[in-house]
Amino acid sequence: MRQLDALKSPRFTQISTFARLPVTRELEDVRALFVGIPFDDATTYRTGARFGPSAIRQGSRLLRPFNPFVGTFPFDSLNAADYGDIDIIPGYIEDTMAVIEREVSDIIAGGRTVPYIGGGDHSITLPVLRAMHREHGKVNLIHFDSHYDFWDSYWGKKYTHGTWLKRAAEEELLNGIVQVGIRGSLFSDDDLKVPGRLGISSFNIRDVKYETEKVINHINSLRGKSYISFDIDVVDPGTAPGTGTPEIGGLNGFETLEFIRKLDLDLAGFDVVEVSPPYDVSELTSMTAANLIYEAMSVQAARLSSK
Amino acid sequence: MRQLDALKSPRFTQISTFARLPVTRELEDVRALFVGIPFDDATTYRTGARFGPSAIRQGSRLLRPFNPFVGTFPFDSLNAADYGDIDIIPGYIEDTMAVIEREVSDIIAGGRTVPYIGGGDHSITLPVLRAMHREHGKVNLIHFDSHYDFWDSYWGKKYTHGTWLKRAAEEELLNGIVQVGIRGSLFSDDDLKVPGRLGISSFNIRDVKYETEKVINHINSLRGKSYISFDIDVVDPGTAPGTGTPEIGGLNGFETLEFIRKLDLDLAGFDVVEVSPPYDVSELTSMTAANLIYEAMSVQAARLSSK
Amino acid sequence: MRQLDALKSPRFTQISTFARLPVTRELEDVRALFVGIPFDDATTYRTGARFGPSAIRQGSRLLRPFNPFVGTFPFDSLNAADYGDIDIIPGYIEDTMAVIEREVSDIIAGGRTVPYIGGGDHSITLPVLRAMHREHGKVNLIHFDSHYDFWDSYWGKKYTHGTWLKRAAEEELLNGIVQVGIRGSLFSDDDLKVPGRLGISSFNIRDVKYETEKVINHINSLRGKSYISFDIDVVDPGTAPGTGTPEIGGLNGFETLEFIRKLDLDLAGFDVVEVSPPYDVSELTSMTAANLIYEAMSVQAARLSSK
Amino acid sequence: MRQLDALKSPRFTQISTFARLPVTRELEDVRALFVGIPFDDATTYRTGARFGPSAIRQGSRLLRPFNPFVGTFPFDSLNAADYGDIDIIPGYIEDTMAVIEREVSDIIAGGRTVPYIGGGDHSITLPVLRAMHREHGKVNLIHFDSHYDFWDSYWGKKYTHGTWLKRAAEEELLNGIVQVGIRGSLFSDDDLKVPGRLGISSFNIRDVKYETEKVINHINSLRGKSYISFDIDVVDPGTAPGTGTPEIGGLNGFETLEFIRKLDLDLAGFDVVEVSPPYDVSELTSMTAANLIYEAMSVQAARLSSK
Amino acid sequence: MRQLDALKSPRFTQISTFARLPVTRELEDVRALFVGIPFDDATTYRTGARFGPSAIRQGSRLLRPFNPFVGTFPFDSLNAADYGDIDIIPGYIEDTMAVIEREVSDIIAGGRTVPYIGGGDHSITLPVLRAMHREHGKVNLIHFDSHYDFWDSYWGKKYTHGTWLKRAAEEELLNGIVQVGIRGSLFSDDDLKVPGRLGISSFNIRDVKYETEKVINHINSLRGKSYISFDIDVVDPGTAPGTGTPEIGGLNGFETLEFIRKLDLDLAGFDVVEVSPPYDVSELTSMTAANLIYEAMSVQAARLSSK
Amino acid sequence: MRQLDALKSPRFTQISTFARLPVTRELEDVRALFVGIPFDDATTYRTGARFGPSAIRQGSRLLRPFNPFVGTFPFDSLNAADYGDIDIIPGYIEDTMAVIEREVSDIIAGGRTVPYIGGGDHSITLPVLRAMHREHGKVNLIHFDSHYDFWDSYWGKKYTHGTWLKRAAEEELLNGIVQVGIRGSLFSDDDLKVPGRLGISSFNIRDVKYETEKVINHINSLRGKSYISFDIDVVDPGTAPGTGTPEIGGLNGFETLEFIRKLDLDLAGFDVVEVSPPYDVSELTSMTAANLIYEAMSVQAARLSSK
Repeated sequence: MRQLDALKSPRFTQISTFARLPVTRELEDVRALFVGIPFDDATTYRTGARFGPSAIRQGSRLLRPFNPFVGTFPFDSLNAADYGDIDIIPGYIEDTMAVIEREVSDIIAGGRTVPYIGGGDHSITLPVLRAMHREHGKVNLIHFDSHYDFWDSYWGKKYTHGTWLKRAAEEELLNGIVQVGIRGSLFSDDDLKVPGRLGISSFNIRDVKYETEKVINHINSLRGKSYISFDIDVVDPGTAPGTGTPEIGGLNGFETLEFIRKLDLDLAGFDVVEVSPPYDVSELTSMTAANLIYEAMSVQAARLSSK
Repeated sequence: MRQLDALKSPRFTQISTFARLPVTRELEDVRALFVGIPFDDATTYRTGARFGPSAIRQGSRLLRPFNPFVGTFPFDSLNAADYGDIDIIPGYIEDTMAVIEREVSDIIAGGRTVPYIGGGDHSITLPVLRAMHREHGKVNLIHFDSHYDFWDSYWGKKYTHGTWLKRAAEEELLNGIVQVGIRGSLFSDDDLKVPGRLGISSFNIRDVKYETEKVINHINSLRGKSYISFDIDVVDPGTAPGTGTPEIGGLNGFETLEFIRKLDLDLAGFDVVEVSPPYDVSELTSMTAANLIYEAMSVQAARLSSK
Repeated sequence: MRQLDALKSPRFTQISTFARLPVTRELEDVRALFVGIPFDDATTYRTGARFGPSAIRQGSRLLRPFNPFVGTFPFDSLNAADYGDIDIIPGYIEDTMAVIEREVSDIIAGGRTVPYIGGGDHSITLPVLRAMHREHGKVNLIHFDSHYDFWDSYWGKKYTHGTWLKRAAEEELLNGIVQVGIRGSLFSDDDLKVPGRLGISSFNIRDVKYETEKVINHINSLRGKSYISFDIDVVDPGTAPGTGTPEIGGLNGFETLEFIRKLDLDLAGFDVVEVSPPYDVSELTSMTAANLIYEAMSVQAARLSSK
Repeated sequence: MRQLDALKSPRFTQISTFARLPVTRELEDVRALFVGIPFDDATTYRTGARFGPSAIRQGSRLLRPFNPFVGTFPFDSLNAADYGDIDIIPGYIEDTMAVIEREVSDIIAGGRTVPYIGGGDHSITLPVLRAMHREHGKVNLIHFDSHYDFWDSYWGKKYTHGTWLKRAAEEELLNGIVQVGIRGSLFSDDDLKVPGRLGISSFNIRDVKYETEKVINHINSLRGKSYISFDIDVVDPGTAPGTGTPEIGGLNGFETLEFIRKLDLDLAGFDVVEVSPPYDVSELTSMTAANLIYEAMSVQAARLSSK
Repeated sequence: MRQLDALKSPRFTQISTFARLPVTRELEDVRALFVGIPFDDATTYRTGARFGPSAIRQGSRLLRPFNPFVGTFPFDSLNAADYGDIDIIPGYIEDTMAVIEREVSDIIAGGRTVPYIGGGDHSITLPVLRAMHREHGKVNLIHFDSHYDFWDSYWGKKYTHGTWLKRAAEEELLNGIVQVGIRGSLFSDDDLKVPGRLGISSFNIRDVKYETEKVINHINSLRGKSYISFDIDVVDPGTAPGTGTPEIGGLNGFETLEFIRKLDLDLAGFDVVEVSPPYDVSELTSMTAANLIYEAMSVQAARLSSK
Repeated sequence: MRQLDALKSPRFTQISTFARLPVTRELEDVRALFVGIPFDDATTYRTGARFGPSAIRQGSRLLRPFNPFVGTFPFDSLNAADYGDIDIIPGYIEDTMAVIEREVSDIIAGGRTVPYIGGGDHSITLPVLRAMHREHGKVNLIHFDSHYDFWDSYWGKKYTHGTWLKRAAEEELLNGIVQVGIRGSLFSDDDLKVPGRLGISSFNIRDVKYETEKVINHINSLRGKSYISFDIDVVDPGTAPGTGTPEIGGLNGFETLEFIRKLDLDLAGFDVVEVSPPYDVSELTSMTAANLIYEAMSVQAARLSSK
């Protein structure tokens, strides 16, 4: 579909949709679809990510049609559109997960529409992966984050933004799992052994900073459908301050964009989560999130056109 | 038309439209229409009002269907909708005025649709009044502001947000003119004589604070169609900090809402201008603007139903 | 207990506790106890109130021992202290309510310790009232708010910050109920009939602004133990911007403090809820909340000393 | 002297001086002089007032030549100018006081130049009063504040922003002393007796809110030269958040301006202190301070012209 | 000329001029002159750059006389001063361009005074280049930016901050053109061919990040007078958030300063544009801009002294 | 001692102490102690660092027990605790220095407790070093900063945050002195010779960026006890905006943390100073400071365990 033309209709005008694309729920020809999932009640520290989809839309208004670094027109190639949001149920994590799973399943039914999800906290990835599994069977997970998110429970509860990956592993939804950018302090030294146990290839921030190509090659060697889950807190908080559990010392904007541009994956879906606008500054974080989606769509578009 | 149901779809979800109303350009049955005019190049101090319509939409998401102080369902009664924005031409005041005049004329053609305009700076009111004049002949102007806006020119230029009222008077677009809340310091003592010369009834902030009923009665005694132009800077900057030329010592929120609720006018149109989001705090100013539109729609609805 | 002496230890130094009082869980001689309940997953719009207790502590550091308007030393008279927070369960409303009910019951057991609670969103008042009921039987409720909070459910859920009062009424926890400052727009005109049905005396913002004394007299005529629940959004957002569902046009700071100072009640408990620090400005809202607690303690102290 | 002409040189252009007046140290014909005293090391809570003069200059750029409420051209009548700042000595209170006393003495020598001082914290008023006393003998002091500022010492130190008035009284610099707007909580009930002991007429916020005219009449009945010291924290923090020790529940902007406009005094000097820009929002506080100086100059101008 | 001595007059005191240098319009001996051009009506997204010059002055107060990385005293060597601002005409792009061209021509007449311009949006560079051309004939342009700025028109208008370079090329004002840091998404793939057509050497952000020396060598090989136009948005928005059309993934502060320090050019002029203070945070962006001017002056000073 | 368990008591709950550790003044078994020194009257530009300790406590709540990069449980190994603050004397630099020296001496008496100090401005390091000297004799100083801090005096005063190192050298408190990250502009070219004269090894930002290992090796070759003084302004202001005299172009978060992790020193004490919360954004700076303390404690713990 067509973005509003910025040369006629200035980019600060009109209703804010993702990248100024049309809103539609007729998805037949839509290959790339922005979907908002504004849920944030599974956070363990700062909330606010419920305003993430709305802020990402605002922050996406400067995106133009052609990506010169990837060499593609992602919106045109993919007939991209904005779905609106999934009506989550504030304060009810498990009910919300059921709603998300059902609605994402409907969106991806038939396997042609790739969802680009704006969260929301990271708990939303679990029901999305359940939907992915239903449609595609096991997918690979490329998990950008400064935290492992594989803890068993918080305050006796199994479903939080820090435990979803353990659940996904237990539910056997995933094929290969690769973590990128991990750096937070840990609850225990035993945490270092969990990736081995769960079959996760976990690259911490040193790996990514010092051996980027190796990490990218590992990811690009994965076979089959892949899902990318991007926790914005993997980006340095100087670049992306608007998030719930920031960790000092992450990737800067250039490193982040370059990393995504170099991925070569058969993409089943993408999410960017933990954008918390009340903690953001001059839309830095939501603009970063919007650009990540743009680059990921570009990668999808480039791969399609190269086939 | 129907707002999204907040009891099903939480108010922080979905694309932001005014009061979560549908967007449409089919206006036949629409009696009240939110129209954004995001132009701010005629300001003399701070800019930023080009983001006004977008912020007012965000700030309007808490409005519910029933107004208990006026006793009406404004959106339902008036079949209210959101038009989107007029595509103004940044940096070109006079060209933009032509665009606005033309498009507002189309919107109000037939006289059934009342526009509720979210500015933009105050210069946009001039072309709107030209359109009003075309459709309705001379209308009354109720002008809320902390400034007179009747100066002849700034830096040799006739069209700014401080001169539009002089132009409107010269062009004989208006019937009665009432100013409410004036309080800024002046360029000259001669300014005090201008209202007399131009046939303006000008009530300053002392009049409004000390003799509110008298001012309201004066306004309600006007005959014929009336247009309300509401510069948000008439509200105290403690309540509405996000504006371009703030003046200390204005009306508080309660006084402002009560004033609007008591108006009894045959409304041809309404605008709220000079909302400058970069200077706003926690959406106070845009929420105030959204509430003003809500109250004005309610007044229109109440009058319709009382006929 | 003793505050840290600000003439020796500057008020910006040392660990922040409420009013720089000692932290203790030995409550035998404590008549007034600050208790934090940092839960915010039952909000329907903005979150952030989980940081309310922490911010209220920061905002309380300027409170000095003697209240000249009430003529009392509240902290000394009441042997006031800070309890710390109740460890709520983020994301799990009903489990949290159980925790709150149990822990508040323990705090007030014996009826000598009056809790001054810093929320948290307004849902926390329900379990507090359950605990009150257990200890004291039915109490009166003085409910300051810009919203009725008596709706039946949101998105099919019974427990939110907008439905707690309906639940409390259904559970027959309350004696007289008085609402003060109501002003938000409503879901339906039927809402206006609910207070009558539920036996609520509801004074809207006009009543409070135009007939303050009448409202106060009504409240002071109540017999028996009373609980005050103070939603900070009853205060004008220009004074208290840091809240979740702001409504333009409320009470200013002076009106608010004076109102509390004039109450003459046998106080069973007090809460101030919906302080959302991410939306606050220069600690205005948390300072307001701290002052409200101070005035309420002063009222309790004055009543004790007058007996 | 002449302000830069805002109709030729837009108000956001050029070097910021107070009200866009010329900077000069040739004071012979200058009747009203803005003087910055950027010292803030005598504060007991938040600092930042060292940036006060700079912010007040920025906030004064919207002031126009004619004051319609007082009916005067203050800058023209008084040949007003900006002196620049006094070079205080950061971190050294008593040395700074010596510098201030000396430099203000030079400025006011001859008794024709009235200084309008932008602080800085309230400690600066003590050396200014010493200079006043040298030039004029005892003057009256009209002291707007939410705090008494007459405490004996903080942490064993005699010179702070909370003790300057005690020092001024001890040094017998003053004739009548009137306090306006007091409302903070106190260290002791003994504080209530201090005004009586020191010969201070102290009007608290209730007096000012409920019996404004009485307070104004009391002030206007003073004979001889008067000095006004205006602590910005007497204004409500919703209107003036940028200050060091805010107290909820003060005067709003309109009340404040009206109060100043009604004063009829033989003015020896004026200061506005405790403007702390790091805590300000959209220049609200510095604009308020600039307007207060404008009104005070207008009162001086009106009195001169009425003679 | 001499900066105010920070060891006597603290850097937060006195009227803010660039680097605390004297203001003068007597330019005979001035080799480096700060000139403000506060125009922002040619922006296509966020405005606010009209407050750029004022903010850059504030942000420059920490600059000290000696630059240890370049080994020079730039202000002393160049007898640097602050000119004040050019009185632009808000809302009238083409009239403003005429004013700028005329006034910059006067400033540089004789070729001894090098202007260091603080914008303002990027459209101001066009009339400055016209003035350069008048004085010097064709100059080289070193253009730092994240955008090409060579589009033909926006909304049918030829003069915007995104089209000035096309105009400059069409008007044949320039000799060599080098672009540095380009990275925004594009309107079309045809955009990639424009540099070739217009004779521009365009280095994108990858070139600058991965092959810095090559880019610098290319620039330093230019012969003849050069003008540097520095759009602050080439810097990463984490470092310089206060700008109108931010692009994620730019140069960090260290890279930026080092790049400028290594230039070896015969400098005809320098501008830093698109600093938009309403979107800035703790003066980061204006401090960056001030430091860029400082480094550029240092480069000029070093080259002079090495001759 | 034990942190509060984040899996039971969410990290946003309870009184804020450093890393949620217990507060104690019984230090016998405490090897690592957080100590706040909230003094900021020796600053030469922005103040606010008096709120540093309080903000660092808030910013430390996300720290978890195990540091995977250093491979240690610092809090457990060192039996870490929070001391509270030293009661400084606002506005009296030299008196405060005496208080600090005395109280730090008491804390470190016996040589087992290593203080981790949260400032406060940099002047506090002088009395801490005096206390270190008393206990340990001469120690090495590793001084991270963007400024030399070795100037002789400001405005005729010997004790400021820019002169403490000169005093420490004159008082012969130190053994080896290494500076890391220097980059600010200088008062004179003579400044470049001072390190040589005072026996300081000074590595500027280029040294650190281009030859990190060399600098680390130099530091790690020091023999004897070492004290680290970390001025947060050595970190890039994009990452740590909340500071008093920011300098563009510093270390990013990753570089900073990695640098600290690689140190191998016999640590006598550590301070992080110049954190100024009023200029901070979303707690970036205070979180950075908290993480630095965490890494430094980890280095101490690792060294202990390796012995």
